[in-house]
Amino acid sequence: MFEAKIDATALRECLETVTAIVDEGKLRITDEGLKLRAVDPANVSMISFVLQSDAFDEFHFSCESEEGDNETEIGMDFVKLLGILGIGGKEDIELKLDEHAQKVYIRMGSLAYTHSLLDPASLRKEPKVPELEFPAQVIIETEEFRRAIRAAEKIGDNIVLGVDGEEFFMEAEGEMDKLRLGLTKEQLIHLTPKTVSSLYSLEYISAMSKGMSHAENITLNLGEKYPMQLDFELAEGKAKISYLLAPRIESE
Amino acid sequence: MFEAKIDATALRECLETVTAIVDEGKLRITDEGLKLRAVDPANVSMISFVLQSDAFDEFHFSCESEEGDNETEIGMDFVKLLGILGIGGKEDIELKLDEHAQKVYIRMGSLAYTHSLLDPASLRKEPKVPELEFPAQVIIETEEFRRAIRAAEKIGDNIVLGVDGEEFFMEAEGEMDKLRLGLTKEQLIHLTPKTVSSLYSLEYISAMSKGMSHAENITLNLGEKYPMQLDFELAEGKAKISYLLAPRIESE
Amino acid sequence: MFEAKIDATALRECLETVTAIVDEGKLRITDEGLKLRAVDPANVSMISFVLQSDAFDEFHFSCESEEGDNETEIGMDFVKLLGILGIGGKEDIELKLDEHAQKVYIRMGSLAYTHSLLDPASLRKEPKVPELEFPAQVIIETEEFRRAIRAAEKIGDNIVLGVDGEEFFMEAEGEMDKLRLGLTKEQLIHLTPKTVSSLYSLEYISAMSKGMSHAENITLNLGEKYPMQLDFELAEGKAKISYLLAPRIESE
Repeated sequence: MFEAKIDATALRECLETVTAIVDEGKLRITDEGLKLRAVDPANVSMISFVLQSDAFDEFHFSCESEEGDNETEIGMDFVKLLGILGIGGKEDIELKLDEHAQKVYIRMGSLAYTHSLLDPASLRKEPKVPELEFPAQVIIETEEFRRAIRAAEKIGDNIVLGVDGEEFFMEAEGEMDKLRLGLTKEQLIHLTPKTVSSLYSLEYISAMSKGMSHAENITLNLGEKYPMQLDFELAEGKAKISYLLAPRIESE
Repeated sequence: MFEAKIDATALRECLETVTAIVDEGKLRITDEGLKLRAVDPANVSMISFVLQSDAFDEFHFSCESEEGDNETEIGMDFVKLLGILGIGGKEDIELKLDEHAQKVYIRMGSLAYTHSLLDPASLRKEPKVPELEFPAQVIIETEEFRRAIRAAEKIGDNIVLGVDGEEFFMEAEGEMDKLRLGLTKEQLIHLTPKTVSSLYSLEYISAMSKGMSHAENITLNLGEKYPMQLDFELAEGKAKISYLLAPRIESE
Repeated sequence: MFEAKIDATALRECLETVTAIVDEGKLRITDEGLKLRAVDPANVSMISFVLQSDAFDEFHFSCESEEGDNETEIGMDFVKLLGILGIGGKEDIELKLDEHAQKVYIRMGSLAYTHSLLDPASLRKEPKVPELEFPAQVIIETEEFRRAIRAAEKIGDNIVLGVDGEEFFMEAEGEMDKLRLGLTKEQLIHLTPKTVSSLYSLEYISAMSKGMSHAENITLNLGEKYPMQLDFELAEGKAKISYLLAPRIESE
């Protein structure tokens, strides 16, 4: 049994972080809230998503599984759901799961939306989160990061993110030009001094950049020719999102 | 002889209701105002439109017809005219018909636009309005109706509109999901309790939904597997528009 | 040596006037400021552009040329540069030329953009400005002019601009309709009474119309079947732009 009630904007913003990586996936419902972990179709990026039960105005869950698991897994089409939520309205959204019918009922004011669950067997397995250690960490205002990404999109397909001593930098290079964002420790919310950098596909970072647009700050975890982990919070800190992105092999 | 002056916004909003159904058509000018009745090219929907002479700041009409008719019929390209009016400006619009030259002169501030009339013989005949009796009537805020239509567009191609006892409902069904707007008598401006419903093409209702966007309320006249008549007013009640839409035959 | 600092909005607006005519070109740097003269690829329109050194917050230039010229010529991709500046931000922009490396360094807050100069030999020669005498001059509010252009775009491909006695007019004719803007001397900022008119390609005037969108007034210099010169200022009068447009030969 799962029944819950949540602010429409909070749910919409959370779904946007998910659809930046995958169109559909498995959502796990537990006592603690909603959880999701998924990789994009090309296996380049991953999202780990938790929307805590205390982000909801109401949250009732009890597991009916015979196996004694303390969670229920449902397959959802996030893009479709976001499309419906996106028509607007600021009223609370009520969610209700009917496991037997394999449906989720969503109520937005006078609109009732019934979403048939996807067969979890038809969906990709939840990925394992690799064990990673990041030597450098940077906390930056989201808008500053997003602006540099928008500019980099005009230049090329890849971007280098790194820390050079006490400076965080982003660098994109085209045939005729080059763009560099450099921010010293003082201009950042936090920086671990280090010397590391990695090359990433701008296509994936651009998608993530849209997904994070409602977060105030983001935390970048970086290494040398290493994956990047990008963390942020929504719903007044009660939604926690981590994007993980594999580095590109530099051609030179 | 026809000469008139009208607020630009009022004329623009009226033209938008017409172009939701037809691109061009015959406009009748009478003492009482401007009138139009037209069906869309596929014969699925019809508009009956009256813009009363008292909606104009000035309205002068005298018929020069030898047949003693008390009206003049002109063929117009409404899409083209709306395109020109749509470039904006809030000043009054002056209209002047030159029947001999078969032109309409339109003045918007310092811009003068001359529109050659279409040959009425090249245009479809004005349709007869079928005699219909509607068992159920619902009055609803336009924005509530339009929001449900926008959501339904995400689901499928058809929509059911009906009254179920004291509830008005709209229902769209896709392969994987279903959307339902349900409003009780208390949530509506008016409702005739009844049990009727019909299926309509969403394509046509979407077009009408754009056409009615400036109206505050709309009146839905409904029946069982029956056409729907959708009435609303613009120009402070001095423009009266009725859309008529044929039902679809349900496939089940 | 060239180093300068300028308000981001002023530079962006100036670049927009240039990209209305050409994508890339030769910019001359002198003591007096930045200068450019270029024709579009089809040789129909020309821009003469001066951004005075006093429009800059800082402007340092000294010529290193051995030939003793008092100017430096650089080849730039204006569209690319405007794309980068267009991502926004209102901070000052710092420009620095490295002639040996053939690069321009542009700093916008924490973003540093390096633009490789184009080989001037690969660019078209700077055109000569033809000697022209214009019998009629009209000064008009930019927005009034642009609105007439937007309306004319709905009608046809060409537009007549002229002065008829004490009236300035713009006229576009389609197959079925005709649009005319007529403004008397009293409705204009200035008019030289005359009787002249010429036909121009709307495509070029539409591009210019975008380029001039931030100017308050424009000055039209007109003649009989003659080129048109369109002058305006930006950056508080410290940027001076002239568009020159060849007339079309009237088909009748």
